[in-house]
Amino acid sequence: MCGIVGFVGREEAAPILLDGLSRLEYRGYDSAGIAVYNREKGLQVEKAKGRLQVLCDLVQGGSTVHGTLGLGHTRWATHGEPSDVNSHPQVSQGGRFAVVHNGIIENYVALREFLQSEGIRFASQTDTEVVAQLLEYYYDGDLLEAVVKTLSRIQGAYALGILCADCPDRLIAVRKDSPLILGFGQGAHFLASDVTALIKYTREVCYLDDGEIAELTPDHLWVYDSYLRPVEKEHHHVDWEISAAEKGGYEHFMAKEIMEQPEAIRKTISPRIQDGRVVLDDLALTARDVAEMDKLCVIACGSSYHVGMNAKYILEKLLRKPVEVTLASEFRYCDPIVTEHTLALVISQSGETIDTLAAMREAKRLGAKVLSIVNVVGSTIARESDGVLYTWAGPEIAVATTKAYSTQLAVIYLIGLYCAQLLGSIPQDEYDGILSELQAIPDKMEEILENRSDIQYFASIYFNHPSMFFIGRNLDYAVGLEGSLKLKEISYIHSEAYAAGELKHGTISLIEPGTLVVALAGYGALFEKTMSNVVEVKSRGADVLGLTTHSRAAEMAKTADHVISVPDTHPLLLPSLEVVPMQLLAYYVALQRGCDIDKPRNLAKSVTVE
Amino acid sequence: MCGIVGFVGREEAAPILLDGLSRLEYRGYDSAGIAVYNREKGLQVEKAKGRLQVLCDLVQGGSTVHGTLGLGHTRWATHGEPSDVNSHPQVSQGGRFAVVHNGIIENYVALREFLQSEGIRFASQTDTEVVAQLLEYYYDGDLLEAVVKTLSRIQGAYALGILCADCPDRLIAVRKDSPLILGFGQGAHFLASDVTALIKYTREVCYLDDGEIAELTPDHLWVYDSYLRPVEKEHHHVDWEISAAEKGGYEHFMAKEIMEQPEAIRKTISPRIQDGRVVLDDLALTARDVAEMDKLCVIACGSSYHVGMNAKYILEKLLRKPVEVTLASEFRYCDPIVTEHTLALVISQSGETIDTLAAMREAKRLGAKVLSIVNVVGSTIARESDGVLYTWAGPEIAVATTKAYSTQLAVIYLIGLYCAQLLGSIPQDEYDGILSELQAIPDKMEEILENRSDIQYFASIYFNHPSMFFIGRNLDYAVGLEGSLKLKEISYIHSEAYAAGELKHGTISLIEPGTLVVALAGYGALFEKTMSNVVEVKSRGADVLGLTTHSRAAEMAKTADHVISVPDTHPLLLPSLEVVPMQLLAYYVALQRGCDIDKPRNLAKSVTVE
Repeated sequence: MCGIVGFVGREEAAPILLDGLSRLEYRGYDSAGIAVYNREKGLQVEKAKGRLQVLCDLVQGGSTVHGTLGLGHTRWATHGEPSDVNSHPQVSQGGRFAVVHNGIIENYVALREFLQSEGIRFASQTDTEVVAQLLEYYYDGDLLEAVVKTLSRIQGAYALGILCADCPDRLIAVRKDSPLILGFGQGAHFLASDVTALIKYTREVCYLDDGEIAELTPDHLWVYDSYLRPVEKEHHHVDWEISAAEKGGYEHFMAKEIMEQPEAIRKTISPRIQDGRVVLDDLALTARDVAEMDKLCVIACGSSYHVGMNAKYILEKLLRKPVEVTLASEFRYCDPIVTEHTLALVISQSGETIDTLAAMREAKRLGAKVLSIVNVVGSTIARESDGVLYTWAGPEIAVATTKAYSTQLAVIYLIGLYCAQLLGSIPQDEYDGILSELQAIPDKMEEILENRSDIQYFASIYFNHPSMFFIGRNLDYAVGLEGSLKLKEISYIHSEAYAAGELKHGTISLIEPGTLVVALAGYGALFEKTMSNVVEVKSRGADVLGLTTHSRAAEMAKTADHVISVPDTHPLLLPSLEVVPMQLLAYYVALQRGCDIDKPRNLAKSVTVE
Repeated sequence: MCGIVGFVGREEAAPILLDGLSRLEYRGYDSAGIAVYNREKGLQVEKAKGRLQVLCDLVQGGSTVHGTLGLGHTRWATHGEPSDVNSHPQVSQGGRFAVVHNGIIENYVALREFLQSEGIRFASQTDTEVVAQLLEYYYDGDLLEAVVKTLSRIQGAYALGILCADCPDRLIAVRKDSPLILGFGQGAHFLASDVTALIKYTREVCYLDDGEIAELTPDHLWVYDSYLRPVEKEHHHVDWEISAAEKGGYEHFMAKEIMEQPEAIRKTISPRIQDGRVVLDDLALTARDVAEMDKLCVIACGSSYHVGMNAKYILEKLLRKPVEVTLASEFRYCDPIVTEHTLALVISQSGETIDTLAAMREAKRLGAKVLSIVNVVGSTIARESDGVLYTWAGPEIAVATTKAYSTQLAVIYLIGLYCAQLLGSIPQDEYDGILSELQAIPDKMEEILENRSDIQYFASIYFNHPSMFFIGRNLDYAVGLEGSLKLKEISYIHSEAYAAGELKHGTISLIEPGTLVVALAGYGALFEKTMSNVVEVKSRGADVLGLTTHSRAAEMAKTADHVISVPDTHPLLLPSLEVVPMQLLAYYVALQRGCDIDKPRNLAKSVTVE
């Protein structure tokens, strides 16, 4: 959840590190720091609690720190509260090693006690300092040997960047369960936790694998396995535009990414629809695999889990196969019932979400076939899956996901239609109907986005409510879950989504005059049922903001205080449209409340620690 | 969700109606009313918004209203806000019919428009008034004919008590999807929505079935089908003690029911354990049924749904069969995948929960075998199941369930052990170990209850927090869901339960200094994992109240601000113990906040409307 960047070359390192960190700041922003080696002054470390700008001001944009080799870090605190001293890089007692770290060292308490018993004093409460201290403890002139010994002692998940003042021409990078990317420049090499930090400087990258150790100098890059045997790495070319990682005129990345959704969906579905059929050549799934499938296990976290909640309704309808949706953090440890005929459907924007990755490995170990839906090409989940369907959303920078959600959902429809055709589980005319409606989604989404000022108006009415509820049934419920999460994430309003019929089994006691209830009632077959729950909350004084389709807007307005409507579509496709007003509502509410939308407190983009 | 009572005999009706309503008040208490027929004054109707006491004061304990025939009602508003005019009984325009009603008339808008077009004026906004007006509209001297014609026009769920001023010697009772019980007295007959209203007067009852019409006079009781053909009804004897429906020295029913849990579990499990084996003669399930079972579908609402969440973890572990837990209100409409080898496990305290009943019927229609876990003998769900396992908890009066939850959970263990033995899915020593731990639960629960003042102390510290979070993994998560619901229901604090690993995918943005997080970490295998999430919320300033077992309390206290511990037990049995401190916490927090614990606002006991 933190961001790492490293540079070794012939130019000044500090400005490059700060620029890289600025593109990683969305991954964590409790504090930031850089370490640069200077031939005269030795190791220079500058750190500051707070946003990256505090650090930039401290080092005057990098101009106070000179040297051509360095590491940078932006932090999302796990162990040790956010503070200057707990920021990275962490330095060993003797000042020889500087370390930046993503992940968690699980046995740090025991290692710390051991090192303290050896007379070593600790400056911070971080697990990371243990790594720096261990490196110095084991160092006897051979850098790589010290690294190997240190790795043999630490347990947990980590991506590490290591700088040793005794070897001022090289950086070391290692990883386990936490992503690390190496970049090839002109007389320079880079390391970073995320490709967005590098694309301004290079498009040639390789992905470090678990247990590998990389040694970077200006002119060479070697990768070794844990026995220090050389490893050949495949090079990848990144074709994301640098502009995709910039705001392009919008006030926030989130606004830009909401607006990019129609185009992202077009890019995701168009290449996979040919001659009126869904063609998924990248899907390693035969007709027999699909026929023999005993169930689908959707594994995901956060918003991707909500895509999974939609997928359950959608895929069970289309395939008549059981779909089980499990939080990745629960799946890992629940001794799941999985057979060789189970298809694990793994959803992750970054492809690096640690719980999702671990759950995926567990599913594989148990014999399941793994199909992943991932946004980042070459990410760990993508590489370890049996098949991967990429969402062509481009880089998503805002912490609150929008276009990744929408494109993941689009891929669910593609999978559903593709498998339904293999199974013959729906009639051809229904197949054709859903497919043509899917292709119409981007245009209908554009209509919603054009009318976004309506939602801005509602946000201006409701932004100050201390708690909110989202209710709906079936797919409307699944969308409500995402709407509620969006609102929570960026506006800090305690909201909660409920299956509409469940509200009266307890939570209705929280409804009092003026409570805001967002009622999702787009799904026609359950419109009346949901409206009867709307009547219940209205009769207890709630303000109701309704969401339905154009064709039912007038009916809903008889009961709800305000109504937002989306274009009519096939019922299964409703979530693709309904989610957009929910995103906009969260965005405008947070804007009204003056929240830091792209960087909500406590949150980080891809969650690569447990 | 409302309460109905009716009396026809030779004594004064009003005091009997008011006493019956006092025992039903937990089912709804927005408003109350009675209608009594008096030979001189005709139909007298007295109604009042607010608690029953308001009505009692109005009629001076019944002494201002004379007559030996009457109906009473206590209301939980669905259609039409709580008010005097919307209270029941509802009377027809001409004053000839008085009606009390539980349920919802779904087509009341259309019927109302029809009657208005016929010149009939309406006094209230209720759906119920439509029934009274229709009865008068169709009445031409034959009461039963008017009832049959009226029933042919109304759609929805209802239990109705009907009084006609032209037939002052009889009451009419009808039902569809909403429970109604008839009682046999000395020269008197009763009707009631719940047996607790009757047990002071009679123990001989019969249960009206869907579509049946009952005609009650002091000396006779006839039941007809919808074609007015006589129906023979089976009589039941109720053996609940009247004291069970009284507080017995406790300040609230909830406190009494929390304390009754050890005994309720003993009563539930003891008769079913013989010679070291679980014997479930009441379970219509053969070894072959169990072996062929493709999955278990748990169907429930509210706290029973949380028992289902526990059941998933418990039964999957013991049986290695997939368990799917679905909210009843969702199951009904999601086109569920069910085969003739599916076992539907239906959980409901009252046995009348409308969504659960409807979902159960849907499961049956799709071919599933239905096993129910129900507290009320003779309730509709019990009668319509293929097999029923009663929880011998006695009447539960407090709206927030406690002993029903605990006994439902105890039945889950019995089912798990019974089926595991049929399947041979766990080794004998594990079977013996779990069984003996199950038998030890009541004693361990008593230990927790004896130390309840500790929890009262924590409640006095934390009661004023505006929002709270419950986190845990696996079974700890399932218990957290129930802990959060308890707190919400009776204290009106917006709380929410999270799978601990999921918190950082959004909701952690709501954690700020002073936020209360209740961390459940009883499950040893995941203790470390949950503690790492505790560190995360601590480092953002949260106050953490930890819950674990005695053996880990000291370890947890190193990080959490306060720790509650429960006796160690088999991991699968932990929820039975952990839930007790969660109930006590909710109770004492609500007590501190001065909330009306047994009758929380907006809530009703068994939810018999959608």
